[in-house]
Amino acid sequence: MLDEGEPHGLPGSYLNGVYEDRPLPAGEASYGRPTTTQTVINVTNGKLIRLFVNDEPFDVRYGSLRSHERALDFRSGILTRRAEWVSPNTESVRVTSQRLVSFAHRAVAAVSYEVESVDQAVQVTVQSELLANEQLPAADGDPRGAATLDHPLASEYHDGEPNVVVLVHRTQHSGLRVGAAMDHLVDGPGGLRTDVRVAEDAGLVTAATTLQPGQRLRLVKFVAYGWSSTRSLEAVRDQVWAALSSARQAGWDGLVAAQRDYLADFWDHADVEVDGDAEIQQAVRFSLFHVLQASARGEDRPIPAKGLTGPGYDGHAFWDTEAFVLPLLTLTAPDAAASALRWRQRTLPIAMQRAQELGLAGAAFPWRTIAGQECSGYWPAGTAAFHVNADIAHAVIRYVAATMDTDFERGPGMDILVQTARLWRSLGHHDGDGRFHIDGVTGPDEYSAIADDNVYTNLMAQLNLLTAARVAEQYPDRARELGVDSEEAAAWRDGATAMYIPYDEVLGVHPQAAGFTGHQVWDFAGTPPDHYPLLLHYPYFDLYRKQVVKQADLVLAMHHASDAFTAEQKARNFDYYEALTVRDSSLSAGTQAVMAAEVGELDLALDYLGEAALMDLDDLEHNTRDGVHIASLAGTYVALLAGFAGARYESGAVRFTPRLPDGLARLAFTIVLQGRRLRVEVKRDSARYLLVDGDPMEIAHHGTAVKLTAGKASAQPIPAMAARARARQPAGREPARRRAADGTTVGSVPPAGE
Amino acid sequence: MLDEGEPHGLPGSYLNGVYEDRPLPAGEASYGRPTTTQTVINVTNGKLIRLFVNDEPFDVRYGSLRSHERALDFRSGILTRRAEWVSPNTESVRVTSQRLVSFAHRAVAAVSYEVESVDQAVQVTVQSELLANEQLPAADGDPRGAATLDHPLASEYHDGEPNVVVLVHRTQHSGLRVGAAMDHLVDGPGGLRTDVRVAEDAGLVTAATTLQPGQRLRLVKFVAYGWSSTRSLEAVRDQVWAALSSARQAGWDGLVAAQRDYLADFWDHADVEVDGDAEIQQAVRFSLFHVLQASARGEDRPIPAKGLTGPGYDGHAFWDTEAFVLPLLTLTAPDAAASALRWRQRTLPIAMQRAQELGLAGAAFPWRTIAGQECSGYWPAGTAAFHVNADIAHAVIRYVAATMDTDFERGPGMDILVQTARLWRSLGHHDGDGRFHIDGVTGPDEYSAIADDNVYTNLMAQLNLLTAARVAEQYPDRARELGVDSEEAAAWRDGATAMYIPYDEVLGVHPQAAGFTGHQVWDFAGTPPDHYPLLLHYPYFDLYRKQVVKQADLVLAMHHASDAFTAEQKARNFDYYEALTVRDSSLSAGTQAVMAAEVGELDLALDYLGEAALMDLDDLEHNTRDGVHIASLAGTYVALLAGFAGARYESGAVRFTPRLPDGLARLAFTIVLQGRRLRVEVKRDSARYLLVDGDPMEIAHHGTAVKLTAGKASAQPIPAMAARARARQPAGREPARRRAADGTTVGSVPPAGE
Repeated sequence: MLDEGEPHGLPGSYLNGVYEDRPLPAGEASYGRPTTTQTVINVTNGKLIRLFVNDEPFDVRYGSLRSHERALDFRSGILTRRAEWVSPNTESVRVTSQRLVSFAHRAVAAVSYEVESVDQAVQVTVQSELLANEQLPAADGDPRGAATLDHPLASEYHDGEPNVVVLVHRTQHSGLRVGAAMDHLVDGPGGLRTDVRVAEDAGLVTAATTLQPGQRLRLVKFVAYGWSSTRSLEAVRDQVWAALSSARQAGWDGLVAAQRDYLADFWDHADVEVDGDAEIQQAVRFSLFHVLQASARGEDRPIPAKGLTGPGYDGHAFWDTEAFVLPLLTLTAPDAAASALRWRQRTLPIAMQRAQELGLAGAAFPWRTIAGQECSGYWPAGTAAFHVNADIAHAVIRYVAATMDTDFERGPGMDILVQTARLWRSLGHHDGDGRFHIDGVTGPDEYSAIADDNVYTNLMAQLNLLTAARVAEQYPDRARELGVDSEEAAAWRDGATAMYIPYDEVLGVHPQAAGFTGHQVWDFAGTPPDHYPLLLHYPYFDLYRKQVVKQADLVLAMHHASDAFTAEQKARNFDYYEALTVRDSSLSAGTQAVMAAEVGELDLALDYLGEAALMDLDDLEHNTRDGVHIASLAGTYVALLAGFAGARYESGAVRFTPRLPDGLARLAFTIVLQGRRLRVEVKRDSARYLLVDGDPMEIAHHGTAVKLTAGKASAQPIPAMAARARARQPAGREPARRRAADGTTVGSVPPAGE
Repeated sequence: MLDEGEPHGLPGSYLNGVYEDRPLPAGEASYGRPTTTQTVINVTNGKLIRLFVNDEPFDVRYGSLRSHERALDFRSGILTRRAEWVSPNTESVRVTSQRLVSFAHRAVAAVSYEVESVDQAVQVTVQSELLANEQLPAADGDPRGAATLDHPLASEYHDGEPNVVVLVHRTQHSGLRVGAAMDHLVDGPGGLRTDVRVAEDAGLVTAATTLQPGQRLRLVKFVAYGWSSTRSLEAVRDQVWAALSSARQAGWDGLVAAQRDYLADFWDHADVEVDGDAEIQQAVRFSLFHVLQASARGEDRPIPAKGLTGPGYDGHAFWDTEAFVLPLLTLTAPDAAASALRWRQRTLPIAMQRAQELGLAGAAFPWRTIAGQECSGYWPAGTAAFHVNADIAHAVIRYVAATMDTDFERGPGMDILVQTARLWRSLGHHDGDGRFHIDGVTGPDEYSAIADDNVYTNLMAQLNLLTAARVAEQYPDRARELGVDSEEAAAWRDGATAMYIPYDEVLGVHPQAAGFTGHQVWDFAGTPPDHYPLLLHYPYFDLYRKQVVKQADLVLAMHHASDAFTAEQKARNFDYYEALTVRDSSLSAGTQAVMAAEVGELDLALDYLGEAALMDLDDLEHNTRDGVHIASLAGTYVALLAGFAGARYESGAVRFTPRLPDGLARLAFTIVLQGRRLRVEVKRDSARYLLVDGDPMEIAHHGTAVKLTAGKASAQPIPAMAARARARQPAGREPARRRAADGTTVGSVPPAGE
């Protein structure tokens, strides 16, 4: 959104955890169906600064722009805008604004706004606004969008004093109290006049003066937010006052310096360098920055599918967080990963109550939620997608493997592992031959549902059960506390050992779920290109009963449960599912990149990487207006690390199988692993491993053990690879090629922008 | 409902086909999901007659009742009420009312209301009312209930003249115009005074006089209804005027005589005599009468699941009509069966449009509807239950087999058969071995959904495809008209011939659908008795993935596709599914009775017959307040004929395998079959067949061919039967026994009543 509010792409302002309850309607009621849902709300907007030049509103749709540029600097975390505008009345001004949402001061945002007269004396008025219940564009009915809640905030308090406005509101049903405040520093030539106006839903600080050519008016705006479900009006009001004071105390320069320091440290641990494809280089940093923004200061709150960039999916968090976002955070900002998992642990009582309601043991985490309650009204793709529980457990396992954080493991980690293991044990059953089945569930692929023995679900549940049994043995005091006895742990081990994994002997592939490979193959040839995504043009009943895959499911199983498949099985399965996968979900391309790289399809992997990386920068799904796709962004990172570097560490052993496609010349990155910083640099023929700090460690490079000691780099040759026929995708659903036939990279660096 | 309106059980008044549209809300929208639904509305109430005795309202909750009796005479079709009431002020009156909804005059109802002073002079006032938008009790949230539409009728016209009131209203969204009118004959001692009042939603004709002991005031009320979606206000108004004139012309006695004549003819064709169980004897006549009421004057309109007796299921018609109600009508009132099927044929354009929307060929009939549009918002148990299409086709096949009505077969019948065959051909697919599968559909059992190769669906689709191919050959001109060529007919034959019917070789039973017998068996022992019906206490996800059966599915397949199973398979399948079937649907007991009788469990069959028969008379499911269960009532008849008489005629050959349980001494009935009237009388040891009229015919009695000529009875011995262990039902779900251990019949004839 531009400073002046209009025209806008995504006008909303969002605070993590601030939502409203609304009824979840149903034509036919049924037992266990939630009757209310939660929707993220557009909170008080503190970004607005409107400018008037001789009473003419500064609006880029009118007058003419001599130049206009917006640049987000990932290193400083500052969005800078420079515009030179000629008003319809021919006065010209130069506007320079900078804005930041502070990483260091979690409740603070700030704007520096400067206007300069170019070639004649002009009277300028700058209005800085704090606006609640701002009008938003109406929803368009796309199920992936959001409900628009009209006027969600009820005023509780408003006050103004020179340069300062405070507004406190409350949501009507969820009962959350939201405070917002702003303060200003104004600097300009003599004759400057400021005033303040305040009403229930709006506060306005105005500065007006006359600028001679070359003179400037500068306004620094500090914005503070605070919210609570329990604290009093006075407490919330004082909280935003305090945040405002801390911001003023730091000053604009102090906030900028702290932002730079925070990000310097992050990039030092997390940066990824990609040579040979400038667009991907930019995209991966864009991804890292946005994922960090969505999660760094979550403080035990969920990471929504859209972060805080838009109202898409009602602001809900899904399994995306654990399956796609935490792999990035675990290696780059492990504290943020732990914080996101602690949020899950905090909601265990709600999840345990849900399990009980469903007649199950342990905990059943919600398919979509803000505060922990199940918010999905369509159970075949919601409640039935029990894999979310194993994804959460897997994120715990991955986090612990990467960090060796045993305090976390025996604390919140074990709470989660035990309650999810209990769920799986009660969800599955043995057949007459003693095989353990999990029937009637939905896997990651949302174009199938309510199937028996989904391979992804069964393998992830197996891992969940085995790990729960292990930690119960490892931490007997905690096991006692949680009521786990040796019989229960044995039952988990038994369920895991007897887990049935269907396999189609005739085709030589794993069916996504029992019976899948016997279904009719979707008529791809008869599907017009404009009928994608299929879910908007075909009924679920038809999608569910045919072989068509929305997003990696069996292929994701081959990444997340890598050891359960032989290399031959992976290759055959990959080819089989490539021909069925339409990627109507942004969650798919990153995983397909990982497995394409593993089976040796490096060019294809690069194409998928490109798709994941440019999802939002190029608005590939035409819905970036609802917010960026945090999981797809994270998938960019995962595609590079797990794909082209072949990094696997989740089971405890650290292994790399690096190999670059022709389109990339070099890949280098630093990760935080097992308490050490490890730098990896991959070139076409060799890889170089450098343990930056920490105790010696052993890794595997293409199956060869390599011992690393701090400060001593080890170069390893990359073995040659057998050629392989390129896998085929459904007609028209091939990913865009990153490289033209002549070897040049397709696409170009898009203009910089937010 | 009592004449005076209160207290009431079921206060509504319903006209077949009069509904309002209302939005069908969804939390998550999806392609192909209907966004509006149709709800039957409570139309203008013409039944009300209120009485005041010296200004004291006649209300059975106050004062005291010396006697009160209501009797519905199935022979006359008249509901008679006799009450002697002493007012709180000690005046006593005798009230006698009679009411009828005319079978002969389809738009007319009438009431004769008589009040007599018993022992002192009293001033009596009788108010006859016509009341629109009557207040109804609110809905209770049970998904089987109905939406209450507040104030559905907007007034368009109201007028009154001495003794007469006319009201015309219109529904707001569906745009249906509803006219109602009343006229009165009043007869009483001198000093009688009448007046009329009329407003938009109410008309009142009042008669007041003073009655000496023994004197009577009598009021005959004629009520006429008319409605239309297309005709003008004036046309609808004149239509009810005309109906009122015809009623007056006939007079009360004329209406009564016509009602008697109509019913005498019906009973002559349809009566069933049951000796040895008076309760069942009463119940089967109650059933026949109510089914007749629901269907006799449908005139190409649907037969709703509750008939016109209540707002349950929003007044929707389901597959119940074709699968359970039409078997009764086909043998007793074949014109009514044809009329119901013509309604389906009339809605073919809507069903063809729906199929197209779903990406299928032919016609996809709605799961629930009033006017033909799909009204189910929960597709796993709605749209996915494609068997409704085969049920409709099967009803056509059954009707033609019973009536030999070739005009119907080559006309509306063939339209239906061809479009449903096209649906099946496009819904199924061949596997690599050439077997034809129908994946991802829902069978009759609503505790399973979205399964592959549901045996019931596949067998019924097979019959549908074969019959469509046959009629295409038989009526080549019609086939050409419908665009059926020999390739298409061949494709139908091929799909039918290659139809895959799963069989569990290990257990030696047919799975209800592929994989069903591998699922976990429901924990019946752990299910408390008050947790039935399960759908109100467990989520669908849990029900769907376990072996638990709401209602006959595979067992219904063994009735409707009798020849697809050997006797041994039937016996084993019956036992297997008995142990899983909880009968949470009223549609189940009748079918279980039929198959129990066929496999030789005669006592169990009688128990199920009792349950079907007493569903409403004893309010077994505690929801008769929403209306009677028309299909369960019809199931009583089917249980006797297809069960204890073993009647099968659907394939063209007429076969009987009569055998009575110890609880019944004699079963006799007359049916209309192949243009003849056939009377069958079954006793313990022998059966007697009498062709009442028509050409000679051949039937089979327990496998022996018997030639029948008109007027000459043939007695046949009933062969002895091997003893069989009683099948077991889930704990606590055994049907109530009809006979105590000492052989006496359990239960007694309930007091006569409506």
